[in-house]
Amino acid sequence: MGHFGDGGTETKEMDIRSLSSSHHQHLPYIHKVGVPPKQNLVKEFTSTVKETFFADDPLRPFKDQPKSRQFILGVQAIFPILEWGRSYNLAKFKGDLIAGLTIASLCIPQDIGYSKLANLDPQYGLYSSFVPPLIYAFMGSSRDIAIGPVAVVSLLLGTLLQNEIDPTKNAVDYWRLAFTATFFAGITQATLGILRLGFLIDFLSHAAIVGFMGGAAITIALQQLKGFLGIKSFTKKADIISVMRSVFGSIHHGWNWQTIVIGSSFLAFLLVAKYIGKKNKKLFWVPAIAPLISVMLSTFFVYITHADKKGVQIVKHIEKGINPSSVGQIYFTGDYLLKGIRIGVVAGMIALTEAAAIGRTFAAMKDYQLDGNKEMMALGAMNVVGSMTSCYVATGSFSRSAVNYMAGCQTAVSNIVMSVVVFLTLMFLTPLFEYTPNAILSAIIISAVIGLIDYDAAILIWKIDKFDFVACMGAFFGVVFASVEIGLLIAVTISFAKILLQVTRPRTATLGRIPRTNVYRNIQQYPEANKVPGLLIVRIDSAIYFSNSNYIRERILRWLTDEEEQLKAAGHPQIQFLIVEMSPVTDIDTSGIHALEELHGSLQKRQVQLILANPGRVVLDKLHASNFANLIGQDKIFLTVADAVHTCSPKLAEEV
Amino acid sequence: MGHFGDGGTETKEMDIRSLSSSHHQHLPYIHKVGVPPKQNLVKEFTSTVKETFFADDPLRPFKDQPKSRQFILGVQAIFPILEWGRSYNLAKFKGDLIAGLTIASLCIPQDIGYSKLANLDPQYGLYSSFVPPLIYAFMGSSRDIAIGPVAVVSLLLGTLLQNEIDPTKNAVDYWRLAFTATFFAGITQATLGILRLGFLIDFLSHAAIVGFMGGAAITIALQQLKGFLGIKSFTKKADIISVMRSVFGSIHHGWNWQTIVIGSSFLAFLLVAKYIGKKNKKLFWVPAIAPLISVMLSTFFVYITHADKKGVQIVKHIEKGINPSSVGQIYFTGDYLLKGIRIGVVAGMIALTEAAAIGRTFAAMKDYQLDGNKEMMALGAMNVVGSMTSCYVATGSFSRSAVNYMAGCQTAVSNIVMSVVVFLTLMFLTPLFEYTPNAILSAIIISAVIGLIDYDAAILIWKIDKFDFVACMGAFFGVVFASVEIGLLIAVTISFAKILLQVTRPRTATLGRIPRTNVYRNIQQYPEANKVPGLLIVRIDSAIYFSNSNYIRERILRWLTDEEEQLKAAGHPQIQFLIVEMSPVTDIDTSGIHALEELHGSLQKRQVQLILANPGRVVLDKLHASNFANLIGQDKIFLTVADAVHTCSPKLAEEV
Repeated sequence: MGHFGDGGTETKEMDIRSLSSSHHQHLPYIHKVGVPPKQNLVKEFTSTVKETFFADDPLRPFKDQPKSRQFILGVQAIFPILEWGRSYNLAKFKGDLIAGLTIASLCIPQDIGYSKLANLDPQYGLYSSFVPPLIYAFMGSSRDIAIGPVAVVSLLLGTLLQNEIDPTKNAVDYWRLAFTATFFAGITQATLGILRLGFLIDFLSHAAIVGFMGGAAITIALQQLKGFLGIKSFTKKADIISVMRSVFGSIHHGWNWQTIVIGSSFLAFLLVAKYIGKKNKKLFWVPAIAPLISVMLSTFFVYITHADKKGVQIVKHIEKGINPSSVGQIYFTGDYLLKGIRIGVVAGMIALTEAAAIGRTFAAMKDYQLDGNKEMMALGAMNVVGSMTSCYVATGSFSRSAVNYMAGCQTAVSNIVMSVVVFLTLMFLTPLFEYTPNAILSAIIISAVIGLIDYDAAILIWKIDKFDFVACMGAFFGVVFASVEIGLLIAVTISFAKILLQVTRPRTATLGRIPRTNVYRNIQQYPEANKVPGLLIVRIDSAIYFSNSNYIRERILRWLTDEEEQLKAAGHPQIQFLIVEMSPVTDIDTSGIHALEELHGSLQKRQVQLILANPGRVVLDKLHASNFANLIGQDKIFLTVADAVHTCSPKLAEEV
Repeated sequence: MGHFGDGGTETKEMDIRSLSSSHHQHLPYIHKVGVPPKQNLVKEFTSTVKETFFADDPLRPFKDQPKSRQFILGVQAIFPILEWGRSYNLAKFKGDLIAGLTIASLCIPQDIGYSKLANLDPQYGLYSSFVPPLIYAFMGSSRDIAIGPVAVVSLLLGTLLQNEIDPTKNAVDYWRLAFTATFFAGITQATLGILRLGFLIDFLSHAAIVGFMGGAAITIALQQLKGFLGIKSFTKKADIISVMRSVFGSIHHGWNWQTIVIGSSFLAFLLVAKYIGKKNKKLFWVPAIAPLISVMLSTFFVYITHADKKGVQIVKHIEKGINPSSVGQIYFTGDYLLKGIRIGVVAGMIALTEAAAIGRTFAAMKDYQLDGNKEMMALGAMNVVGSMTSCYVATGSFSRSAVNYMAGCQTAVSNIVMSVVVFLTLMFLTPLFEYTPNAILSAIIISAVIGLIDYDAAILIWKIDKFDFVACMGAFFGVVFASVEIGLLIAVTISFAKILLQVTRPRTATLGRIPRTNVYRNIQQYPEANKVPGLLIVRIDSAIYFSNSNYIRERILRWLTDEEEQLKAAGHPQIQFLIVEMSPVTDIDTSGIHALEELHGSLQKRQVQLILANPGRVVLDKLHASNFANLIGQDKIFLTVADAVHTCSPKLAEEV
């Protein structure tokens, strides 16, 4: 594995040698290409599996430990609270208490609003902020995430469920399907974690998520126009055209000016509070408590003015008491089982994507390690338990997690504090929300989801990668003009198309020698690089697989044809050696070997010799296994392009 | 684009400079990293599109030509016969005539047998060897391919059609659906060609095809046991278990010994002929005409012995006359339209895969260029016309193409010759096949499909790539134990899984300096390479995309953690610089940039500096566009690892 440390004198010696060797121009030092020791099959297989599924090496702490210690470590791995709880102290609790109270004040009005997005009664939002955060606090390892219902998942779940069952006509079946979907969302998340397939969520690209979130935010904001304008008959569709038609169709007989006044004034208050919090990071608590203050003020106002009698719609009733059991309500048989699974898988994956992004962001900010697969198990367990206690899909909320972080949370105890506050609210305070106007909830949701529209990210994406931008806009317009599902489908499709394009059309480049060095680089990037007469040096920038092997073979031949035409036109000597720089070729499969064989055949017909430079470990193995190395000759494989050129050039000199 | 030719003196000068620079060890020559000239958006977009869809530059001959010439070239592009036909001569015709007669003698008995695999009457096989080869001869550009029905496509089509309509109970609808599927197979092929999406067929990996073909061959051979053993009631399923149950269930009352005797003796004859042809390439005509001889002999034998009265099943009747029109029979509306499209797309793609492989193989052997997309248009046109003239899906047959090649075919005229022979057969000779025993057809099919089982390829795949071998075996067992569709599905799924694995889990490696050089290589491949104290050099072997950005970030941090633990244990100085070798990183997207930013953040917390070596053109562009280059500092980006080490090492020396 490389000598090290004792290399002090050796390095000096090497330098001298390499100096002296560069004096003898005709005898450059050419290092042999390394043929790695043959690995046996089982070892090769294990290492591949390990790298694919256990890249983070989760069993490292278990190594070389006695059995009893391994058991304790195992329990701690499932319940990290047992580990960090032992060093918990009062100072930490102070931070967690303040953070917990702050996110509780933020989450209660949000929960009531979000549950409407999912077409559920308001108490279900509060239920989902009681049980899941508790479970997460015991099993999760993020210190900053705030658990509960979130806008986008609520909307997605609501849309998908509504496609199957009408929530007004058939409310009981609708709830049951919601719990079923939540159960399977949890199962999906936990399964991905246990099977260590967490990387699957990476297939939704960042750009697609930015577009999807932005589109979902606009869709949600538009939906709020119903409560905000006090419209009674509103479209069930979520696309912008239906909603706008609904809004302007009811302008003369559906809008309620009292509602609009209340809604607008509090929305203005919320946005000002948000602006203050943004300008001065120390005042982060202003936007955090503004929603609760709005709710209290507006409720009091409606109560004393009897505005509900004048058409201002109010919450009316929130069920008192904590989560009832819903174990018996989950569909484990029948038609709805399959539908529940389908909806659960989609909602679970999206919830996971959001939670993973949040966990990763804050872990990077505070520099601690997060095991993605373990997180998924925690989130999954929390949703499975949630589905049995009348909760719908919960995940990490970006806005509340940010507040949690800024309020100085130290551990997941802040989630426990929030959970306790929600518990007290459910037990004693729900009657207070009776006169809360719906317009306030709409205003709170609008001010919350505005943050999901990330202009800056979209602009940056445009600058960096145009294809990503197409994915971003595709997802965005898909959500806004069609539906969340279509937007999601577009996002996934474009993400996959990009991967497929990447693997079918890898880049190739011709190389030239950078003046005054022995370095060969892309001529397009370094226009000052010189081509070597009689040689064509091509670099393949990808593994050679069945998906691109034919393209690579044809592309290399086209480079050669182009070059030969140019040379012929200029009356220069023809190409005699084609050097393929293989450094970026990380792997090759049987189709790739075939393509190389065909390339070799075509080159022989044209009297051009094929030379390979720096094939990697795996590639070299396979070149030998397939006998291709012997076919072209072992002496045609070099460590570097420079070595290959050195060896070819003197020959050229003789022949020309 | 690199000076050239006039570089004679310049090169010398450079050498001297580089020599002299290596004397001053403390002032090594460090070349600036090339920032490519900014491309404008449209140009960037066009070049990407061109590289993706027009990699073969099909319009090159049209460039700088007058309008009239462009028109002629255009017509010639659609009908290549107009181009090569002008230099056609008697010598070439002699070759084509012999080859055409040979493949005709091979195709007639095969066609009659293959049409049974598709559950169609024997004449349909002959029809498909009359029209499609004619069309292909005018439009195709392969000189060696022999067009007609082939075993695997016939089986696939038969299986898929049979799932929809019972061919015995509802023969007319079955034919109509077959023509509909053929029509859409042609449309699919032509569309792929016109849209230049031919590369889509590359997504079925070579290994998967080997497995699929082998499995299909065994399935076909097993199906032939019906005719070969003279069993009357036979299962409709194609999996090995159903077939074996059917075969041994009828052992006492279903087998017909006369049939078995005829079948076995001629199968032995065919196999011996095949063996002779394989041993002595000059006797290739022996296996080529053996089937026709078997048919003639056995028909004569049955006719004079009246064996058909003793239970030997015979062909009985082949419709006389050439292809009737079937335009009116294609479903353009109704339920069967969608089914026809679905079946057509699948059968068309598989037919295309086979034809493309054949075309490519023989073009490489004779060293001429084939335009894949144009070939697809020719194959598509031929099947569309075929579907209107009572043909089912035709494509290139590997075995007949090989015979065609060995018989000395020169152009597609050999297909015309074959077509004429089939025409004469249809007009005058079909009554002669009345007494041909089915057992002979079974024997011919068995001896033909045996060649599709490619042990050697499977062994080679095992040697080269274990994952490919899994795909191969998956497809094989899927076809044999379940059905052709399941096998195909397994093949496609495994092929895709491989691509996804490739893009989610790219390789990374730590580099060390090869003794006596300035070259840095993978320490695992070159155990003699030395690590540089205080530095960790990591190479990323892939483009950094959303699908792998998190993995790459985590993997690099793990390399660093591992290394630091080792160093700490040995009491060596800690890592101060992390050099990331970016040569193989061909592209980066927004997620990739984010991952790098997060990596930079984590490294700053650990007091390690991030250095980049040799980022490519596109990557460098994006590092600048996203401002990441400024974030880490422009002076942290180097042309080579050696330059980066040179710059870091003296600093280390001062600090340590």
